[in-house]
Amino acid sequence: MRVEIWSDIACPWCYVGKARFEKALDAFPHRDQVEVVHRSFELDPHRAKGDTEPVLKMLSQKYGMSGAQAQAGEENLRVQAAAEGLAYRAEGRDHGNTFDLHRLLHLAKEQGRQDALIQILYRANFADERSVFADADTYLVELAVEAGLDADDARKVLADPQAYADEVRADEREAAQLGANGVPFFVLDRKYGVSGAQPAEVFARALTQAWGDRPPLRLLQDEDASAEACGPDGCDVPPAG
Amino acid sequence: MRVEIWSDIACPWCYVGKARFEKALDAFPHRDQVEVVHRSFELDPHRAKGDTEPVLKMLSQKYGMSGAQAQAGEENLRVQAAAEGLAYRAEGRDHGNTFDLHRLLHLAKEQGRQDALIQILYRANFADERSVFADADTYLVELAVEAGLDADDARKVLADPQAYADEVRADEREAAQLGANGVPFFVLDRKYGVSGAQPAEVFARALTQAWGDRPPLRLLQDEDASAEACGPDGCDVPPAG
Repeated sequence: MRVEIWSDIACPWCYVGKARFEKALDAFPHRDQVEVVHRSFELDPHRAKGDTEPVLKMLSQKYGMSGAQAQAGEENLRVQAAAEGLAYRAEGRDHGNTFDLHRLLHLAKEQGRQDALIQILYRANFADERSVFADADTYLVELAVEAGLDADDARKVLADPQAYADEVRADEREAAQLGANGVPFFVLDRKYGVSGAQPAEVFARALTQAWGDRPPLRLLQDEDASAEACGPDGCDVPPAG
Repeated sequence: MRVEIWSDIACPWCYVGKARFEKALDAFPHRDQVEVVHRSFELDPHRAKGDTEPVLKMLSQKYGMSGAQAQAGEENLRVQAAAEGLAYRAEGRDHGNTFDLHRLLHLAKEQGRQDALIQILYRANFADERSVFADADTYLVELAVEAGLDADDARKVLADPQAYADEVRADEREAAQLGANGVPFFVLDRKYGVSGAQPAEVFARALTQAWGDRPPLRLLQDEDASAEACGPDGCDVPPAG
C-alpha cells in the first residue's frame, strides 16, 4: 500500500500532521508493507526567492491579523506540536519561498533519503533558531548532508533553478487534480484521501479501511493469449512459427 | 499511475516483455504520469550461489528437454527478442542464482538507478559474452558502476548477504499474494494485472483501462472534523481550548 503526503515545509499543520500520521502508521499491523512518499505543495508559490520576512509580520500583513491574533495562533500551534513531542518556536521564525526546499526533497527522493530530509527541514524550520531562508544555499547544503546526501549534489541542485523544477510542478498539478486545496493532504493508494492534520485515530481508520479494501487483482489479457512467461517449471515455448 | 513489474534477470520472457511493455508505454499519452517500479522474483531460488551451468544443459537436466528441443527453444527466444530489437545469444549463456542481482537492483532503486541497472543486467545476461554468474562480484560491480552506482556501495552490498535480502523476499511474498506464479508479471495501480510477455497492444489496452478507471478520491474523515490545514489563505486556527 502506498501513502502519498502532500505538504510544504512552511506549513505548521504539515509538521504536526506528519507526526500524527506516523503515530497511526507505527501501530498499523501491516506497517512494513506501507510505502510513504512525500509530494511537493507550495503554500506561497508566488513569493520571490529571497523575499523572507518574520512569520508574525507575514500573518499580520497577508491575512490582516492583529499582532496578538498572530501570536495567539502561533502559540496554539506550539501547544499542538508539543502534544506530538515536537519542538516549535512560536516567535522569531521566518517565512519565505520553499521552492528550493522542494527541489532538494526531490533529489533526496531519488536517493532514498526523502523522509530523512523532510524530517530535518521541518526541525530546522520550526524548532531551530537559524532560518532556513537566510543564507539558504549554504545552510541547505549542510542540512542535506545531515540527511545523507552528497554536498556537491545538493549544491548543484540549488545552483540550477531548473533541477527538479518539473518534478515539483508535477506534484503540484497532481494535488490540484486530486482536489487538494490545502496541506497536509494524505492519499492512500490513490483511492482514499485525508485532508489536514487529523487525529491519529482518523489516520488509523483510513489505513485499516484502505488496506481491507484493496481490490483483488483483475487480469487484463485475452483468455487465449499464450502466456509467454517463465515460472519454476521453466519458460513457455511458443508454437514454432 | 504506477506499474510494478515482477521479473527475474534469468527470465528471457521478462527481457522481451519489458521491451513490449515499453513500446506501449512510449506511445501512452500520459506517459509522464506513469511510474515504473521493478520488483524481484527468482525463478530458481533454491539454486546455490555459485552453482552455475550452461543454460542448454540446465534445460536438458531440469526439464528433461532433449538437446535439440532446448536449442530450438533458445533459438525461438532469439527470434522473439530480435523482433523487439534486442540481441540474444541462443548459445553459450549461463544459468545461475540471481539473488545478488536482485539485491543490487534494490540498492539501485534506492538511488533512482533501478531501470538503468535492470537494462544493463538484461543486456549483460542475454546479449553479452561474459557471464554475469562467473567471477560475479567483480563483474557486477562494473555493471553497477555503468548504471551510475558507486563502486564501494555495490561492493558492500555484494559482500553482505543480508543487504537488501529482506527487500527481495518482501517482493517475492507480494508476488505470491497477488497470485503471480511466473514472470514477467505487470501490476497497474495494484488493481489490474498482466501476466507474461504479452503483445504491446495488450499493454496499451491495460494502460488505457487502468488510467480511465482511476477512482475519484474518497475523503475519509469526519464531516465535522476541523481541517487543521494550511492553504493559500493561511492556516486554520483551531478554537481556543
